[in-house]
Amino acid sequence: MSAQDEIQRSNPPISLPSWNDIAPAKAIIAFVDKVTKEGSADFVPPAERIAVFDNDGTLWPEYPLVGQLAFILDELKRRIPTEPALAADSIVHAALAGDFAKLLEGTHHDGLMRVLGLTLTGMTTEEFRVNVEEWLASARHPKFGHPYYQVIYQPMLELLRYLRANDFKTFIVSGGGADFMRIWVEGVYGIPPEQVVGSTSRATFELRDSGPVLVKTMNYLFVDDKPGMPVGIHQFIGRRPIACFGNSDGEREFAYDAMAPWGSLVDALKEVPQRGWSVVDMKNDWRRIFA
Amino acid sequence: MSAQDEIQRSNPPISLPSWNDIAPAKAIIAFVDKVTKEGSADFVPPAERIAVFDNDGTLWPEYPLVGQLAFILDELKRRIPTEPALAADSIVHAALAGDFAKLLEGTHHDGLMRVLGLTLTGMTTEEFRVNVEEWLASARHPKFGHPYYQVIYQPMLELLRYLRANDFKTFIVSGGGADFMRIWVEGVYGIPPEQVVGSTSRATFELRDSGPVLVKTMNYLFVDDKPGMPVGIHQFIGRRPIACFGNSDGEREFAYDAMAPWGSLVDALKEVPQRGWSVVDMKNDWRRIFA
Repeated sequence: MSAQDEIQRSNPPISLPSWNDIAPAKAIIAFVDKVTKEGSADFVPPAERIAVFDNDGTLWPEYPLVGQLAFILDELKRRIPTEPALAADSIVHAALAGDFAKLLEGTHHDGLMRVLGLTLTGMTTEEFRVNVEEWLASARHPKFGHPYYQVIYQPMLELLRYLRANDFKTFIVSGGGADFMRIWVEGVYGIPPEQVVGSTSRATFELRDSGPVLVKTMNYLFVDDKPGMPVGIHQFIGRRPIACFGNSDGEREFAYDAMAPWGSLVDALKEVPQRGWSVVDMKNDWRRIFA
Repeated sequence: MSAQDEIQRSNPPISLPSWNDIAPAKAIIAFVDKVTKEGSADFVPPAERIAVFDNDGTLWPEYPLVGQLAFILDELKRRIPTEPALAADSIVHAALAGDFAKLLEGTHHDGLMRVLGLTLTGMTTEEFRVNVEEWLASARHPKFGHPYYQVIYQPMLELLRYLRANDFKTFIVSGGGADFMRIWVEGVYGIPPEQVVGSTSRATFELRDSGPVLVKTMNYLFVDDKPGMPVGIHQFIGRRPIACFGNSDGEREFAYDAMAPWGSLVDALKEVPQRGWSVVDMKNDWRRIFA
């Protein structure tokens, strides 16, 4: 046995222990083997091994609420006692009552935009970081009772690690706010902030007595969803991914007809045969859901 | 002598051979030693070792023309014979005559915007790539007579490699167009497209008979210069760099008073003592300018 064999034996290759050894996992492994095999026709140089993952519903659950929406509602609740204007605001009441139909009324979803503006803008990026970190430390997932950052799909964590061990660069490409995700995704998914593409606005630079700050706004809002996803990939990554993982029609390049407020997966499933996509069934394909 | 010693001797650490062994190079090396020394108070984990570089005037020359402006003028010249509307356009003539004062007239620099629109928008991202690649293959720098991609500051290439060898992630943060730079910076600087922050607009997604395309526009134009630079770093990287390299007031966080059309370095020099910046003098500090 050579020294090289010994190294390989003592460091077994990273694999997918929480995945059943059936079609989707086999397809993923076959794909990775193919693109990493030097000299093969399908070989892809490491620099071009870009893999993109949706976040809500793909890496962590999105029911009963997308995580960022839970943050937004908890922020309103936290601030109402000291901000009478919030307590008197009918849109804030609609949000806290779960009346999402009211928030989504109108072409521009004025109610939703108002709630986003109240909770995601007006503060510096550092103040926002503190708000999110304090929320993460205290909030519990309503169904599972654990902090949100622990309610993560274990098989997807393994998949992220498996791809990175094969010299893929893993990105999040999600409709969620980039500022919100970048605060915690590195610790949870091992994905650094610069590999997070999300919905985003242009902060304003201010020179204060305390020093320079960036103030969050809704200016030039970019919604990284549906046709926005390929636009965001071009603008923020500038290279086409060779592997994409998502859970809704929002990840298709053209889908305008989602039937639920979020997370609908209808049309994409119809296109699976012609497009050769792999469909992962959490019940059949995964041995374990959470870490 | 141990095997470890032998490995180190046969693979000398990457250093800065084109830099004179005086203050600026010494300051850079001392900084890198400090932040990479585990256990030291100044240690920075590899994930946070973000270094950002301006492009024009920092990694390649910006006189007599910023490279992208040379591309734009060459594009106009290339297209005039087959596009009579261009030949009849007084702004196109001003551009080709080098009348930059006319292009910059008015608060919104309408002339410049028109020329940018003519050459940088309306085509798909793939068509634009072909235009840039063909220009790179044929154009020559007016002063040095070589292709632009060969007129690169050798000491800065060494600095990029030196930082990467010390687990820095190197980014470009430049006022130039991200789409323009991403086409060639990987081959020239070893910086992948996803580590390029530049001026950018939002492409539009179209589903054509040939398949999905992204069409370049000037919509939601973001100019990554002056106060736009920290805004762009926040929006595209999401983490503060620990090392910044630039050559003009445009890299200061607040500079509104540049005195030349581009590349003025006036106020930043005044701030050097109080800010502790290192100033590199190409004549005294570099042994060699180009590769």
